[in-house]
Parts: sequence; C-alpha cells; structure tokens
Amino acid sequence: DSSLKVLSLNSNPKLARDIADHIGVQLGKCTISRFSDGEVQINIEESIRGCDVYVIQSTCAPVNQHIMELLIMIDALKRASAKSINIVMPYYGYARQDRKARSREPIAAKLVADLITTAGANRVITLDLHAPQIQGFFDIPIDHLQGVPILSNYIESKGLEDPIIVSPDHGGVTRARKMADRLKAPIGIIDKRRPRPNVAEVMNIIGNIEGKTAILVDDIIDTAGTITLAANALIENGAKEVYACCTHPVLSGPAIERIENSKIKELVVTNSIPLPAEKNIEKITTLSVAPLIGEAIIRVHELQSVSILFD
Amino acid sequence: DSSLKVLSLNSNPKLARDIADHIGVQLGKCTISRFSDGEVQINIEESIRGCDVYVIQSTCAPVNQHIMELLIMIDALKRASAKSINIVMPYYGYARQDRKARSREPIAAKLVADLITTAGANRVITLDLHAPQIQGFFDIPIDHLQGVPILSNYIESKGLEDPIIVSPDHGGVTRARKMADRLKAPIGIIDKRRPRPNVAEVMNIIGNIEGKTAILVDDIIDTAGTITLAANALIENGAKEVYACCTHPVLSGPAIERIENSKIKELVVTNSIPLPAEKNIEKITTLSVAPLIGEAIIRVHELQSVSILFD
Ligand SMILES: Nc1ncnc2c1ncn2[C@@H]1O[C@H](COP(=O)(O)O)[C@@H](O)[C@H]1O
Ligand SMILES: Nc1ncnc2c1ncn2[C@@H]1O[C@H](COP(=O)(O)O)[C@@H](O)[C@H]1O
Repeated sequence: DSSLKVLSLNSNPKLARDIADHIGVQLGKCTISRFSDGEVQINIEESIRGCDVYVIQSTCAPVNQHIMELLIMIDALKRASAKSINIVMPYYGYARQDRKARSREPIAAKLVADLITTAGANRVITLDLHAPQIQGFFDIPIDHLQGVPILSNYIESKGLEDPIIVSPDHGGVTRARKMADRLKAPIGIIDKRRPRPNVAEVMNIIGNIEGKTAILVDDIIDTAGTITLAANALIENGAKEVYACCTHPVLSGPAIERIENSKIKELVVTNSIPLPAEKNIEKITTLSVAPLIGEAIIRVHELQSVSILFD
Repeated sequence: DSSLKVLSLNSNPKLARDIADHIGVQLGKCTISRFSDGEVQINIEESIRGCDVYVIQSTCAPVNQHIMELLIMIDALKRASAKSINIVMPYYGYARQDRKARSREPIAAKLVADLITTAGANRVITLDLHAPQIQGFFDIPIDHLQGVPILSNYIESKGLEDPIIVSPDHGGVTRARKMADRLKAPIGIIDKRRPRPNVAEVMNIIGNIEGKTAILVDDIIDTAGTITLAANALIENGAKEVYACCTHPVLSGPAIERIENSKIKELVVTNSIPLPAEKNIEKITTLSVAPLIGEAIIRVHELQSVSILFD
C-alpha cells in the first residue's frame, strides 16, 4: 500500500529495517543528524503528504536525545501533512517514573505521553510498558503489545527439565504467572526483606525450587543487580540451573559484567533496545520483535484504510 | 519575600547563583542528577507549595538533556502545588529552527514553546531570541529582555576611537542599528554574495570602514565561521581594529580556535551560556546578565504579588 510509510529514527535502525522488511516496504528516506552545537536536524527526503506514517523509535539511552528526535520528527510530519502519525516505541523510556512515590516527585512517564501528544502524534504502539497504567496517560489510541509469548516460545523450544518461572520481586508476579501459564509450569517469587534498617536484605524464596530449572522473568533489566542476586540466591537454595529473560535489555552501567559473572546460564532478551555492539555478551540471546510489531502495523493500517472508506 | 523561590537546573548554576544573590534570596534546594541509564532524576528538597518559582535554565548544549531537565522540573513543580512556574531561559535553544525554510522542515522553536507550556509553565523570561517572532509561539506571557544595552555600555566604556557598528549579515541590521544608536556611531553591513554556485562567497562591505574601529555585533556566535571571516574582510578593507560582541556564546566545534586565530581583537559576550572551563579563551570578555534578569524577576514577582491582593 503506497500510503504506508515506515521511518526510522536513530535509536534502533536495525529493528526498523526488519519491521519494514516484514511489512514488505522500504524505509522512508530521511536523515537525522545534529548541528555543530548538538541540536537535532531532521530532513525528510520524500513526500509524506497524505500518508499513514509509522515512526520507529525506542526511547532508550541516550534517552533525552531520542525523545527530542521523536518530538521534532512528529512536528515535521505534522507540518508536512501526513495523514496519520503513528509512533512505534518498542521501549518506552521514563516508564519507571510513573507515580509520585515521594513528595515533589515528577511523573515523567505522563509528561512524555503529553509531549508526544502535543507534538502531534495520533497513535502509539508500544511493548511491555513497565506499568500498564501508562496506557491511561494517553488520550490518543495506544496499542500495548506483549513480549511474553515470544520469550515463552523460545524458552519452551529449549525443552528445559522441570521448569519453574520465578519473579525477582513482588511487582512482577503477574508477568511470571502469564509465562507459567504458557509453559504449564509453577511459579516462584523472590521475597526480599530488610529485617532492620542498615542490615543486608534477606532473599527468601517462595515456592519449591529444589532441583528445578529456574527461569527468572522481568520486564526491564537495567543494572542487573536484582536479577543476578536473585540468580545466585536460587542456586544457593538448590535450583539446578538458572535462566533469565526480559523484554527490555536496558543493561546500563555494570550490567553486562554482572550477568557474565553471575550464575545465570543464559539471558534471553528482545531487540526492543539494541545491545551495545562493542561488548562481549556471550550469555545473551536476542529474539526479534520485528514480526510482532510488523503485524501490529499491518493491522492498524488496515483499520486506518477502512476508516478512509467511511470518511 | 518568602514566597519567591529561585531554582537552578544544570545548564548555568553560576548564573543562577548570581541571580539569586542579586535578588537577595538563597537558591532553592534541589538535586538534578541522572539514573544509571541516563534518565533525569529530580529531587526538590524543600516545600514549594504556594510559591512563585523561578527556574533558571539555558537550553544550551547538551540541549536535549537541558530541555528534558526543564520539562521534568516543571512537571514536578506543578504536582507539588507551586503557585506559579516561571521559566528563565537566558538562552533559548532551537531558536534557529523558527520557520519552514524548506519542505518538510520542523519548526522546533515552536515545538519547544509548546512543550514548555504543556509541561505546565505559567510564564517565560528570555533574552535576545534569535527571532523575536518566537514570542508569538507562546500563549503564556513572555518577557523578552535585551542584551544590547549591556554590550553597548561595555563597548562605550572602552572609549574606542571612530567606532562603526557592523552587522555580519543582513538579518542582523536591526540589532546593529540599536547598538549604533546607543553609541552614536554609524553602521556597516557585510554583504555576502555567491556570484555563481560552487564559487566562493564575495564579502562586500557596505559603509565606510577605512581607518575605523569596527565592532561586529550578532545575537549568537556558534561555529564562529561567519564572524571571523567578517573580521578578516574588515581588516583587509582598511578597518583599523575589529571587535566583536554577541549575547549568546554557543561557540561549538572550532569556534574558540577560530576566534583566537582571527583578526578579532576582543570578543565580548554575556554569561547566558557558560564558556567551556577547560579552554584557553584569552580574547573573550564575559559580561553578566544576572542584574538584568534579577531585576526582571523582581518586577514580575511584584506584579504576581499585586495580583494576589486583587485575587
Ligand atoms: N531510570 C531509572 N533507573 C533506576 N531507577 C529508576 C529510574 N526511573 C525511576 N526509578 C525508580 O524506580 C522506582 C520505580 O520502580 P518500580 O518500583 O519497579 O516501578 C522508583 O523508586 C523510581 O524512583
Ligand atoms: N543549531 C543549528 N546550528 C546551525 N544551523 C542551524 C541550527 N538550527 C537551525 N539552523 C539553520 O540556520 C538557518 C536559520 O538561521 P538564520 O537564517 O540565521 O535565522 C536555517 O537554515 C537552519 O537550518
């Protein structure tokens, strides 16, 4: 369909190409560069007038740079008379600032939603939001895709013996439950507790992991402190092997070293965020979300085309 | 007045301190840091409920970082029940993307205005916008301060012989005119022209500069290409000496080397953008806009206090 355009910004060009390939279109021609002083410069090099445009951008690090690229691109598309501006954010940055936990805290996840809407986006497609409530931060339609089926299918294909799906904290139990349902496995929970202030946390494990293959599941792995401590606790408490999986490999700071040096046998992630090219990351397996996102775009675009018929 | 708070973000802490000193208040307590993955983390460490808050932030490089700090701070202040949120932007980044010069270009200066308003700002105080039209991009009150008096007073105090104020391009003639009026000096214009494509520009000088002290004036000096070529052309055409001044020393890339190696005797700038601390910048004189901005805040705050009386 000639009126569908996929444009890539700078965060995840490989994923954008794979998505375009899945849909069967070429990426739209544009260059996203920077002026000498660091300001973002965007040139859209083909007409997008009347098109349904899909902009692929994960707001991973450098997050502020990637957000501004996205907002400026939306502004340019709006002024160039795109028919619809659809934002595909495989990773939604600032999602962990999703509530006022303390006085005078910002809610940056809501701010980002408002910024995207103000710039002129018509729809957002995203994947495994840190909190599903973030959907409610938008007044434009938002499609919320799930990474659990992709991760589960891969784990299932390994034919692991006696698996147990383990959530590294209380917040992730629903996610662990979903994966456990798919794998017909039991669930466990790492129950962290600080007995007194300034005393090390105790890692209590809820569920029987003795002799089992533990599969830790989370949405984001950032510095990998939580997940690697959890893996060690599982092995110490009798698990046979530990795997880990997550949708969004933020992997900042010491994350990769921690994972490589941990008891985790294999870490399974998606390409919602590209892995650093220069690092040695033997233990990490990357699964592609391009087909998932490609299908979502095809579905959304069919709806948008239908709506033209009725316009 | 206890209800006036001045907060500094990361772009220009020295200027923020000087502004607070001028007003006679302490800077409000807050820390602006970054999480391991680069996301901005803001902690406001004192109550600002019911206060008129003035946030000092130039959106100079790293511009996207500084814009996001500003927006997240505004969000936090709004949620913490500030009475009014006043944004002091001595330098307004993205001001040069102020119009659609070519097809499909963004107008990032308007986008930034919309982002600041959406985040929840009530008023903006700024200085020498690249285009005064940017005032119209805001639907909230904007105070537009002028740097010309500060620069002119300094130039005047030098008692230069036979001065002529020179605009480095056609766009800056109004600015040169203002300074010339204050110094009771004539004006000149550098009239750049490219005779044919792919042929070097010709620098034609309008106005008689023979034996005079030329003072180049601009709003922004970025890579310093224009201004240093202009200075050399002035000397080649008979000017005795060349001074240069501008409000906003962006000075990106090769700027400082170019200035140091140019025919410019002295470059006079303001502290709307801090100069890089590590560089050797002998030729540059910095004038403070802290009193100008401090006075503007005092005036605005008086108005806001008066409005309480009538509320
Ligand atoms: N980029 C970030 N990196 C690390 N921690 C964060 C980040 N953003 C927010 N947080 C903190 O993470 C917590 C929220 O995470 P959670 O409890 O898992 O939803 C809050 O305490 C936030 O202050
Ligand atoms: N950050 C920047 N650095 C250099 N040039 C820019 C920047 N932002 C915009 N421009 C360009 O500067 C021109 C506008 O400058 P002016 O004609 O002086 O208003 C336009 O051609 C813009 O594409």
